[in-house]
Amino acid sequence: MASSRVLNFGAGPSALPASVLEKAAEGLLNFNGTGIGIAEISHRSKEFTAFVANLEFLIRTQLDVPPTHAILFTQGGGSAQFSATVLNLLARHRLLHPHLSDDERVMDYVVTGSWSEKAAEEAKRMGGSRVNVAVDSRKYSKDGKSFDNIPPHTEYAFSPDPALIYYCENETVDGVEFSHKDADATSFPYHLLDKGALLPLVADYSSSFMCRPIPHLSDHAVIFAGAQKNIGPAGLTILIVRQDCIVDVDAAAQLGATPIPLTMSYKTLFDSKSLYNTPSVLPIYIAGLVLEHLAELGGLKYYEQTNRKKAEKVYEAVRKGEEKAVLQRKVQDGAGSWMNVVFSVLGDGAEQRFIEGAEKEDMKGLKGHRSVGGIRVSLYNAITEADTDKLIGYIEKFVLAESNTTS
Amino acid sequence: MASSRVLNFGAGPSALPASVLEKAAEGLLNFNGTGIGIAEISHRSKEFTAFVANLEFLIRTQLDVPPTHAILFTQGGGSAQFSATVLNLLARHRLLHPHLSDDERVMDYVVTGSWSEKAAEEAKRMGGSRVNVAVDSRKYSKDGKSFDNIPPHTEYAFSPDPALIYYCENETVDGVEFSHKDADATSFPYHLLDKGALLPLVADYSSSFMCRPIPHLSDHAVIFAGAQKNIGPAGLTILIVRQDCIVDVDAAAQLGATPIPLTMSYKTLFDSKSLYNTPSVLPIYIAGLVLEHLAELGGLKYYEQTNRKKAEKVYEAVRKGEEKAVLQRKVQDGAGSWMNVVFSVLGDGAEQRFIEGAEKEDMKGLKGHRSVGGIRVSLYNAITEADTDKLIGYIEKFVLAESNTTS
Repeated sequence: MASSRVLNFGAGPSALPASVLEKAAEGLLNFNGTGIGIAEISHRSKEFTAFVANLEFLIRTQLDVPPTHAILFTQGGGSAQFSATVLNLLARHRLLHPHLSDDERVMDYVVTGSWSEKAAEEAKRMGGSRVNVAVDSRKYSKDGKSFDNIPPHTEYAFSPDPALIYYCENETVDGVEFSHKDADATSFPYHLLDKGALLPLVADYSSSFMCRPIPHLSDHAVIFAGAQKNIGPAGLTILIVRQDCIVDVDAAAQLGATPIPLTMSYKTLFDSKSLYNTPSVLPIYIAGLVLEHLAELGGLKYYEQTNRKKAEKVYEAVRKGEEKAVLQRKVQDGAGSWMNVVFSVLGDGAEQRFIEGAEKEDMKGLKGHRSVGGIRVSLYNAITEADTDKLIGYIEKFVLAESNTTS
Repeated sequence: MASSRVLNFGAGPSALPASVLEKAAEGLLNFNGTGIGIAEISHRSKEFTAFVANLEFLIRTQLDVPPTHAILFTQGGGSAQFSATVLNLLARHRLLHPHLSDDERVMDYVVTGSWSEKAAEEAKRMGGSRVNVAVDSRKYSKDGKSFDNIPPHTEYAFSPDPALIYYCENETVDGVEFSHKDADATSFPYHLLDKGALLPLVADYSSSFMCRPIPHLSDHAVIFAGAQKNIGPAGLTILIVRQDCIVDVDAAAQLGATPIPLTMSYKTLFDSKSLYNTPSVLPIYIAGLVLEHLAELGGLKYYEQTNRKKAEKVYEAVRKGEEKAVLQRKVQDGAGSWMNVVFSVLGDGAEQRFIEGAEKEDMKGLKGHRSVGGIRVSLYNAITEADTDKLIGYIEKFVLAESNTTS
């Protein structure tokens, strides 16, 4: 079966390692010798709860998550967390500062792409509190309207003692990502934040989770990620939550906070070890297999190295395409994502030719997000260096053919 | 692989047809000839959106869902719907009657088991409105405290013009279910409801969805079901929502309703054809395969007949066990669930002997819910009549052995 598979550069749901899928196919009929398939087994069975505990262990050890932080599993994807982070952290802020007015209770949003913009909009819908856009990267874009950069550190305007500070580490649609090196101008400006307090720092890591270590992980209040990029099928959301953010949401509601659906309360998830109600068993199972596979290959260090190489190679191929006036990068220097490389193909109908040519060579999923167009190459963990080289070979061939046509 | 499988009488996640799982195992590596596995394919691809449309079609035709009702797919299980039904229907009520006080805005709950009790508790947490327990079946129980019956029709106290009327069709934990014949004393008392208005009638069908037709379906405002009983893996929730209950939740919030997380808003799901954000692709896929399998076997008529026979046989075996003073039914006449048959095994350590003996014959999942103990036999669609006969053979043998010991 594996031999008939094509290369899938889609942005998510996205490629998973074939060896993992083969093992999962067996587990569908018989999970770990129980005689019962993984989708059929009780989520309270000792076999499955052991599997969940192991998934937590794999994440904790590989990402080096300190004991101050809980690892929780839920459903609903990043979009559900747009609401859940607001509700849980406003409840926390309400308990810490019960007497502030709604206008004094501020949520800071760093807007660097389509997803952080959506999150800020949901905060306005849900909050009943003030949303402060700490920075909007469109102001610093080449065309004045695109998400094509990470703004200079000098431009962030954080509030004093906000209920939350929100950013999206990697913007899947726009291909913009913070540098993970503090020294870089395009890093997240941790140094501007008040380290004296327990920071209410929230990060959407959906499309870069487990592609490399997370800088300043222990300074975060909440890190969340949908599984459907680097680690598994859609339907599983992974949360890393600092313990002081797991609060008695009902007590906060009595002080005037918006009531939180029980399945969105971090306290519910924590108290039940992520088994308050039936979890998405099958995505959890496959995520566990993927992370075991990742550990066998050498863990995050291996992936950091490989993912850097893959991204550098593709950016270099695009740069060469720019020299020939065939391709054009969409993102400014230093802000290019490792996971989602976006570019335009210049000339009438050229993007369509690019996509169709790739499909003829069994490479799919290269079309950019419908809101921005262009080409998007997603290089999640399951895409190997050899896969990347095949794509680069195609890009080079395409650039040559197009430049011959136009010259 | 299939031959090593055991019989799984678990209450959910629960048995799925082996032939479906074998097909799903292939789809994991290559979905419908795309060369991409089902867990890896874009949820916006034409292949997947066609699959979702077909899943809707299968449900609509088999359950005879009228065009007045939308069929929606989401995540979070029944527990998330405990909150979502309250938020959406209170928003609807707010738009219909903007000037009522919270105390005048009433939600009626019919409490006949552990799950409807939980739902009523969540309504109290979320609502900011009055919860009226229209009836609590424990008052009519043999011991004054158990959920062992469906109350007489005379005992329901519904409110005038409530924001919602809630019931749970089949109580998985307690094995109590409404009769689907209006003439029976244990049916849901539809005849007491005001048919003049568009009824805000909400039903939790999680553990009986697709086991037989749904009586008075078109009178319902919302029917919801987690997939992990009769139709697929956990992680998919199916909603049938009457169009007048798909309301502008933001407009309601401006009138004072509690804001609704966007992923819980029925309007969001409806407007996006259930693809507002990445859905749980894999559970949707398997549910589609299960429903195709169900249609091939003869659809709901076939299952209604088979499920009736399975349940009658097991209840009869339990009744014979009662005659020998070995077994004891937990549920009063007429209220016994087709899907979850619960009983006690009398005598010291006898329940443990029952479970261990069954496991020796490769039958698992028979332990009752931890909150009530005893034995629970779940007879979801994937359990065949032959499977049921095997279990009944075991029950008869067990009863004989125990009655010989005690006599």
